Amino acid sequence: MSQITLGRYLWERLHQVGIDTIFGCPGDFNLQSLDPIFQVKGLKWVGNQNELNAAYAADGYGRVKGIPGCLVTTHGVGELSALNGISGAMSEQVKVIHVVGQTTRAMQKDHMMIHHSIGNRPDHQVYARASKELRFAAAELWEVETAPKEIDRVIRECFTKSGPVYIFLPLDLSAEKVSADLLDTPIDLSPAVDQSAQDEAVKAITSAISSAKHPIVLVDTFSKRFGASAEVRELTKKLNVPVFSANMGKGIVDETDELWVGVWNGEISAPGVKEEAKKNDLVITLGHLNADTNSGGFSRKIADDASIHINPFDVVVKGKSYPNTIIKSLLAALTAALPQSPQHSFAKAELPSSRVPLDKDATDITQSSLWPSVQNFLQPNDIIITETGTSTFGICDIAFPPQTRYEAQSYYGSIGWATAATLGAETARREMSDATGEKGRTLLFTGDGSMAMTIQEIGTMIKARLSPIIFVINNEGYTIERLIWGAREEYNDIVPTAYDHLLPLFKHPSPGDSYHFAKTKTELQAVLAKPQLKHPQHLQLVEIVVPKLDTSWRLASTLAWRGEETQEYLKREGFVDTYGGWGLDSGAGGNVKWS
Amino acid sequence: MSQITLGRYLWERLHQVGIDTIFGCPGDFNLQSLDPIFQVKGLKWVGNQNELNAAYAADGYGRVKGIPGCLVTTHGVGELSALNGISGAMSEQVKVIHVVGQTTRAMQKDHMMIHHSIGNRPDHQVYARASKELRFAAAELWEVETAPKEIDRVIRECFTKSGPVYIFLPLDLSAEKVSADLLDTPIDLSPAVDQSAQDEAVKAITSAISSAKHPIVLVDTFSKRFGASAEVRELTKKLNVPVFSANMGKGIVDETDELWVGVWNGEISAPGVKEEAKKNDLVITLGHLNADTNSGGFSRKIADDASIHINPFDVVVKGKSYPNTIIKSLLAALTAALPQSPQHSFAKAELPSSRVPLDKDATDITQSSLWPSVQNFLQPNDIIITETGTSTFGICDIAFPPQTRYEAQSYYGSIGWATAATLGAETARREMSDATGEKGRTLLFTGDGSMAMTIQEIGTMIKARLSPIIFVINNEGYTIERLIWGAREEYNDIVPTAYDHLLPLFKHPSPGDSYHFAKTKTELQAVLAKPQLKHPQHLQLVEIVVPKLDTSWRLASTLAWRGEETQEYLKREGFVDTYGGWGLDSGAGGNVKWS
Repeated sequence: MSQITLGRYLWERLHQVGIDTIFGCPGDFNLQSLDPIFQVKGLKWVGNQNELNAAYAADGYGRVKGIPGCLVTTHGVGELSALNGISGAMSEQVKVIHVVGQTTRAMQKDHMMIHHSIGNRPDHQVYARASKELRFAAAELWEVETAPKEIDRVIRECFTKSGPVYIFLPLDLSAEKVSADLLDTPIDLSPAVDQSAQDEAVKAITSAISSAKHPIVLVDTFSKRFGASAEVRELTKKLNVPVFSANMGKGIVDETDELWVGVWNGEISAPGVKEEAKKNDLVITLGHLNADTNSGGFSRKIADDASIHINPFDVVVKGKSYPNTIIKSLLAALTAALPQSPQHSFAKAELPSSRVPLDKDATDITQSSLWPSVQNFLQPNDIIITETGTSTFGICDIAFPPQTRYEAQSYYGSIGWATAATLGAETARREMSDATGEKGRTLLFTGDGSMAMTIQEIGTMIKARLSPIIFVINNEGYTIERLIWGAREEYNDIVPTAYDHLLPLFKHPSPGDSYHFAKTKTELQAVLAKPQLKHPQHLQLVEIVVPKLDTSWRLASTLAWRGEETQEYLKREGFVDTYGGWGLDSGAGGNVKWS
Repeated sequence: MSQITLGRYLWERLHQVGIDTIFGCPGDFNLQSLDPIFQVKGLKWVGNQNELNAAYAADGYGRVKGIPGCLVTTHGVGELSALNGISGAMSEQVKVIHVVGQTTRAMQKDHMMIHHSIGNRPDHQVYARASKELRFAAAELWEVETAPKEIDRVIRECFTKSGPVYIFLPLDLSAEKVSADLLDTPIDLSPAVDQSAQDEAVKAITSAISSAKHPIVLVDTFSKRFGASAEVRELTKKLNVPVFSANMGKGIVDETDELWVGVWNGEISAPGVKEEAKKNDLVITLGHLNADTNSGGFSRKIADDASIHINPFDVVVKGKSYPNTIIKSLLAALTAALPQSPQHSFAKAELPSSRVPLDKDATDITQSSLWPSVQNFLQPNDIIITETGTSTFGICDIAFPPQTRYEAQSYYGSIGWATAATLGAETARREMSDATGEKGRTLLFTGDGSMAMTIQEIGTMIKARLSPIIFVINNEGYTIERLIWGAREEYNDIVPTAYDHLLPLFKHPSPGDSYHFAKTKTELQAVLAKPQLKHPQHLQLVEIVVPKLDTSWRLASTLAWRGEETQEYLKREGFVDTYGGWGLDSGAGGNVKWS
C-alpha cells in the first residue's frame, strides 16, 4: 500500500475537485506544507502580496469557476489578515477553502511562546476561534488517522453549503503519512436531495404558476452561487414569461433574450422596467438576496401572497414554506414538470427610450456617458468585475452580450475586493479558456479609492502574466462616501496617485502601450478602439478621469430615495444632477430613513 | 448646561489623554461620527489607504508616544480588515483604541439586510464577537445615558492594561447629546496601587539584591509598554550592576552607559556578551517577554532560584510570587528603597572584539557590512523601526546613541507591520518634536517582501508630508523564509519591483533626490553621507540590494541553533556562512527541535 504525506493528500484532493491554482502567502508554519503543491500534476501556486488580497483572489476564482477558490496562510498573522475576505465569501456564499498552517502540536500542547502568539502561556487556537462564525465548517486537524476524512468532509461542505470552510493544519502533521489509495474514492460533492420534499415543492410551484395570469421571474445571485445558472436559463426558457434580474443577478440569463426586460431594482430602475415588473400577479424569485444594495434600498416590494421564492435550501409559495429542497435539483425538476408548451405568452416589453442626460453634449467624460461607451466595448465571453462604488451602480445600465459573466460584491461591499478578486477571476478564466478554447477578457471597473486598498495585487497579476483590463475611475477620492456624507470633507480624500507609474513599478513587460488615459469622450473612444484592448496580451490599465462630485443617476437615486433631506444635501454640496430629479421615476420619493 | 454630541465627547476625551491624530478609513457607518474630529482643537485626521494599515499606524503611534494610538473603521468590512493589526497590539501590549462605526440601532434591532452583513436575518454583532479575545476591553455603546462612562472606562483600561480596546458606536448614537460638563472631570488613568503588596515585593527584592554578589539586569519591552522606561533608567543607575537588553528591550537604557554590556540573546549573542551574563548569581528582569524570538530560541536560561522577575502586574523573587504590583510604581519604589550608595561595584565589561566576517573585503553590500554602516549613520533622538525579517536580527548588532527609540514587532511578527507603523511613529515623533523642540528622525529598515504587504501606506506618508527615511533591503523575496525552508522554492519569491517608481506613483514633491540606490559599499557610504538623509525634509527611500541568500550571522545562528539538520540545510542551499560556523559561539549547538 503506497503512502503519501497528509500535505500531499490535501492538495491532491483539492485538485481533484477542480482547483488548479492555490493562492496565499508563505509563512513559517505553512512552508513545509507548500512543497507538495508542486508535486501535484496540474496544480499551480500564485503567491499574493498579502493575505487579505489572497482571500479576495480565492473568492474571485471561486465565483468564476463555480468551485472553491483556495488560499493558504500562516498561523495568526496570516489567517487574521485574510479574515475580512473570508467574511465576504460567507456573506455572499462564495466557495472558498482557507488552509491555515498552524504551529506544531507540541508547541500548542506546551503553550509555547512562539512568535505570532498572545500572552505568557498562549492558547494557539485563539485565532481559530476568531473565524468561528465566519465559516461554514472547519477541519481542526490533530490526528493523522482521522485527518483525511476531515479534509474530505469540509471540502464537501464547501460545495453543499457554498461558502468558506477552514482546514487547520499543524506544521508537523502535514509530513505524516496516509494511504495513497484514499485518493481513489472521489469525494461526493452532491447535496442529498429529499425527493418527497422536492416533489411537494414542485407541485406547489407549478400549481401557483398555472393559476397566475402574469407571472414574472426575478433572477438573482444565489442561483449562480449554488451552481444553478444553467438550470435558471432552462427554466426561464420554458416558462416563457418576462425575466428581470436583481443587480447582483446580472449576467446569469442572456440579456439579449426577447423576454429579458432589465434590472428591476425597485424604484431605482431604468425607465419602464419597474412598470413592466409591477404588471405581475406572481413574482418567481430564483436565489434572491434581498439586501439594501440589491433592492434599491428595499424599494422592490414583493407581496407574500403573490410570490414564489426559490431559495438555496427551501421554497416559499405564497407564504407557505417548503423546506429541505436543493435549488439546483429543484429547478431542474421544476423545468421537467412544466408542460411542454408554455402556459403563458408575452410580447417583448416595449420600454421608453433611455433617459437623456442634461450633460450629453459635454466634452469631458462623466458617468452619464461612460457606461454607454463601456456597453459598446463589451464582447461575448467577457468577465466583468465591478467594485462597490460608482462602478457597481453604473454597470447596471448596461445590457450584456451573451455569455457574459458578472461579479460584484454588492451585499458585503468591502472596497478593495474587486482588484484582488480580478486576479482570481482572470486566473480562473485562463484555466477555463485553456480547457474549452473559448476566448474572452476579464474587465475590472474600480475607483481610485478602492484600488488603493489592494493596489499591490496588480503586481501579482503582472508577475503571473495575466492580461485583465483594469479601468480605474479617478474621481479624487471616495465619491460614493461623499454622496452619503461629507462631500467635501478631508476624510473622503485619498492619496493622489500617478497611475502611469504603476505598471513600471511592478516591472510590466510593456508599460508604455499598456497604460491609457482618458478625460474627454474623444480620448475614451480612441482608447477603447485600441487593438491591445480588444485582445490584450498583457495587463492593460485605463485611467478614466471624471469630476469629483460626478455620479451615476442610479447611485444618486438610490440615495435620493432616502428622502428630501438627502436630496437637498446632494444639491447643496454640488453633486451634478445630470438627469434632473436624480433620475428618479415619477412617483418615487424617500420612505427609508437610515439614521 | 451646555450639550455636545456623543461623537464630540468621544474625540474630546481621546484628545484629553494625549491623542493628537486619529487614523482610519471612512465608511458609511462612521462618516457622521468623523465630523466632530475637526471640531476638537489640536486634533488631526490622517486617512489610511486601508484598515490593516490604519491599525499598524495606530500601533506605531502608540508605541512611540506611550499613549494610545487610535483608529476608526466601519462596521464589518473595516473592523475585520484591521483585526490582525489589533491582534499584534494585543500580543505586544501596545495601547490602541479601535473605534468602530456600527449600523444604527434600528437596523440592528430589526436584523436588517444592510450591506456588510451576513445572512438573511443578520446579527450585526457577529464582527464584534470575532475580536472578543483580541482586545482587553470593549464599550458596546447602546444608550446615550451610559455611553460617556463606558467610553471613559475603556480609555482607562487601555492605559492600565496596556493593550487594545474597542469602542463600538452605532451611527445614530453619535449624534445624540450629552452634557459638556462631563469633560471637566479628567479620566483617572493611573492604575490603583496596592501599597502593602508593593511594599512586600520591594522588601523581597531588596533583600535578594543585597545578598547577591553578582546581580545583573535584563531590560525588556514590557517595562516600556507600561510606561516605566524612565524608572528603569533610574533603577539601573542606582543599582550600578551590569545591564543587558533583550532584543525587544533595546533602546530603553542608554547603550553608551559604562555598565551596559549588550544584547543578551542567550546563545545567540555577540562575542563575550553571554559569558558576561553568565557570571551572574542573580538576574533581575524588567518587563521580560520570554518568547522564542526574544530569547535566541529559548536559549537564554534563567534559573528560578537565581532571578527576580519584575513583571507588569507581579513580581517573582527566586520562585516566590508577589502578586498585585504595578511595574511603574514598583520600580520607582524599589529605586527609592535602595541604599544611597550602591551595594555593588563592577568594572566596564571587556568584550572581545567583534567577529570579523569572511567577506569583509567584498565590494558589494552584504548583511555583514550593512549594519556597521547603519551604526555610523545613527544620530541621537532617532526612532528606529525594524521589520520582522533580516532587519530585526541585523539591528541587534548595533549599539545605539543616547535617546534612541527602537521598535520592532518581534513577538507577534506580522510582516508588513513596520512600513505602516512607521507612519504612526513618524506622526508621533513630529508631534513630540513640535512640543519639545527635540529634533530626530524616524528610520525604517524593512525588506522587499514585507514592504509589499503594506506598500500603499508610503503614499499616506507622502500626502501627510512626513519625512521618515525608509531603507528597503531588496533581496528578491522572503529571505527569512528561505532560511527556514524552501530556499529556492517559488513560494518564497515575490513580485519584482522597480522602487524608483514608488515616490512618483504617490506624487512625492521631490522624487529625484529622495530615492537612493546602493549595491556596493561605496554607493552606500555615498548615500548615507547625503545631506537630505541627515536632515530629511521629505520622505527618503533608500534601496539596498543584497544577495538573495545573504543573511546576518544572528539570524542564521538563531536557526542553526535548532540543530545539525538545519545547519546542513543552510549549507546545502547555498546560504553564505559569512562568519564561519554561522557565528555561533563555541559551545552552542542545537537543542531545540521545531518540527
